[in-house]
Amino acid sequence: MKLGILGYGNLGRGVECAIKQNPDAELACVFTRRDPSSVKILTPGVPVVNVSEVAAYKDKIDVLIICGGSATDLPEMTPEYVKYFNVIDSFDTHAKIPTHFANVDRAAKENGHTALISAGWDPGMFSLNRLYANCILPEGKDYTFWGKGVSQGHSDAIRRIDGVKDGKQYTIPVESALSAVRNGENPELTTRQKHVRECFVVAEEGADLARIEREIKTMPNYFDEYDTTVHFITEEELKRDHAGIPHGGFVFRSGVTGWNKENKHIIEYSLKLDSNPEFTSSVIVAYARAINRLHKEGVTGCKTVFDIAPAYLSPLSGEEMRAHLL
Amino acid sequence: MKLGILGYGNLGRGVECAIKQNPDAELACVFTRRDPSSVKILTPGVPVVNVSEVAAYKDKIDVLIICGGSATDLPEMTPEYVKYFNVIDSFDTHAKIPTHFANVDRAAKENGHTALISAGWDPGMFSLNRLYANCILPEGKDYTFWGKGVSQGHSDAIRRIDGVKDGKQYTIPVESALSAVRNGENPELTTRQKHVRECFVVAEEGADLARIEREIKTMPNYFDEYDTTVHFITEEELKRDHAGIPHGGFVFRSGVTGWNKENKHIIEYSLKLDSNPEFTSSVIVAYARAINRLHKEGVTGCKTVFDIAPAYLSPLSGEEMRAHLL
Repeated sequence: MKLGILGYGNLGRGVECAIKQNPDAELACVFTRRDPSSVKILTPGVPVVNVSEVAAYKDKIDVLIICGGSATDLPEMTPEYVKYFNVIDSFDTHAKIPTHFANVDRAAKENGHTALISAGWDPGMFSLNRLYANCILPEGKDYTFWGKGVSQGHSDAIRRIDGVKDGKQYTIPVESALSAVRNGENPELTTRQKHVRECFVVAEEGADLARIEREIKTMPNYFDEYDTTVHFITEEELKRDHAGIPHGGFVFRSGVTGWNKENKHIIEYSLKLDSNPEFTSSVIVAYARAINRLHKEGVTGCKTVFDIAPAYLSPLSGEEMRAHLL
Repeated sequence: MKLGILGYGNLGRGVECAIKQNPDAELACVFTRRDPSSVKILTPGVPVVNVSEVAAYKDKIDVLIICGGSATDLPEMTPEYVKYFNVIDSFDTHAKIPTHFANVDRAAKENGHTALISAGWDPGMFSLNRLYANCILPEGKDYTFWGKGVSQGHSDAIRRIDGVKDGKQYTIPVESALSAVRNGENPELTTRQKHVRECFVVAEEGADLARIEREIKTMPNYFDEYDTTVHFITEEELKRDHAGIPHGGFVFRSGVTGWNKENKHIIEYSLKLDSNPEFTSSVIVAYARAINRLHKEGVTGCKTVFDIAPAYLSPLSGEEMRAHLL
């Protein structure tokens, strides 16, 4: 399958790396909003083209992978580019998924294309695990924990504070909460009891550190409901020790079965990821395979991970899968 | 949906309990090879019928759940009863799945029915997790651990030893092996390094305990490749402390991404089950919902968990799933 990448940031570069690991996938083109001559990609011989020319590639790409941000890019881009291509995105604003789905579904059907939104790990693999576990154990409780990992939104929030030069924020699940869930105790957990936040901050010279720390810890929506630790470090330390973009987390379902609900069951799914964008990209490329196949079968419209039979993700035949993975 | 149960042992009773937890499912009939008057079920008002009369229920049941053993029952039963019904089984002899699939697929297609084989947790949810994780991380290593839980086959093997009155065997993953995998060390593990076996044995009065212990520990295929512990206990202790049928386990994929494979990722799925047959039954009932729907859409033939889009397992609408679970 020939894949296109639209947007060459961390996610776009991750998709490029994932394509290299999938022998049935080929990178056809990278589209950028920047001056194409300023964008250096890793794969030799692949054109980098300005996004204004994307329509000319209409018949040269099986699936276009849209690597934009969820806040402003994807709500515009995915319904627009599905007019020309089968598309896939990693839209992750949970509350706005129904609207985004409706917009993409309408445009996809009008143009005979196939789309998949919200691929990745949350939404994505975590959603799948919530769905499977809810279907198997209809009577139970769900828990999702995130981390340990870097939250881009919280890191950005720190960097907007006056006197902050740079910073990074880690979301960390509270170990005792994880254990209580894992032991089947079905705890009721407040926001504060589920996660702590740890910040590494590079301050401007002469900045008031006490004020910065106070502003972080009391920031509404971002930090005020959490126990937050703030460490002031040097720019060199930030570069040396906090350059990565790790993430991960845990999805639990704790449920009961039996005539009198006498038996407990715990389903746990967890991810420990060195690179959040590269893992997301790897999920996207697997789902691009599915979208390409569904389109060839004549399926159009918008899909999510819930609608895709797992076999569509694999390069293996049904026989191979049944013999080796079932 | 109206469901039938064929075979009323631990699994059949588990299915009956699972049906009670799913408001869209109804138990229509239980079929037994025994004298129906000797079989007492839990659900009031549901007929228990001899299996010889099953064909008369052809149009009264949406999906027949076949609760037989994998060794001799299911290879005969599933291809036979799919002539009359949509069926689902939990066939778990991994090596014989391709043959069983082919037999059921042929009979299902010839009779316009829909079947799903090998529902449960392994094969079943563990297989799904192996497939998803392999598609996302094509370069990596798989690990499956079982336990802590009761192995029926190993417990039976103990009970066949001369001088053994009763016994139960637990399969237990080796904690240090789990940790090594979880830490991304990609260890090469021998059979002995992955699991230990613990046996609780009630001996006949006057039996030679040293000989029994030796016979267990050196039993080929079952115990000789494992570190095995044998505890002799009383019949009362066995009844009091080992009456349950717990099980569970862990599926890992440890893989790499990045242009130079520089980033590691660990995907872990685990189950901790108080009742192995009740959890298996809960998986089966969710897949019965999918098979019923696929049949109504005109799909025939044999399927596995790999072929079923997750949304088919849920009583929720697409809108509800996207709004609450994605």
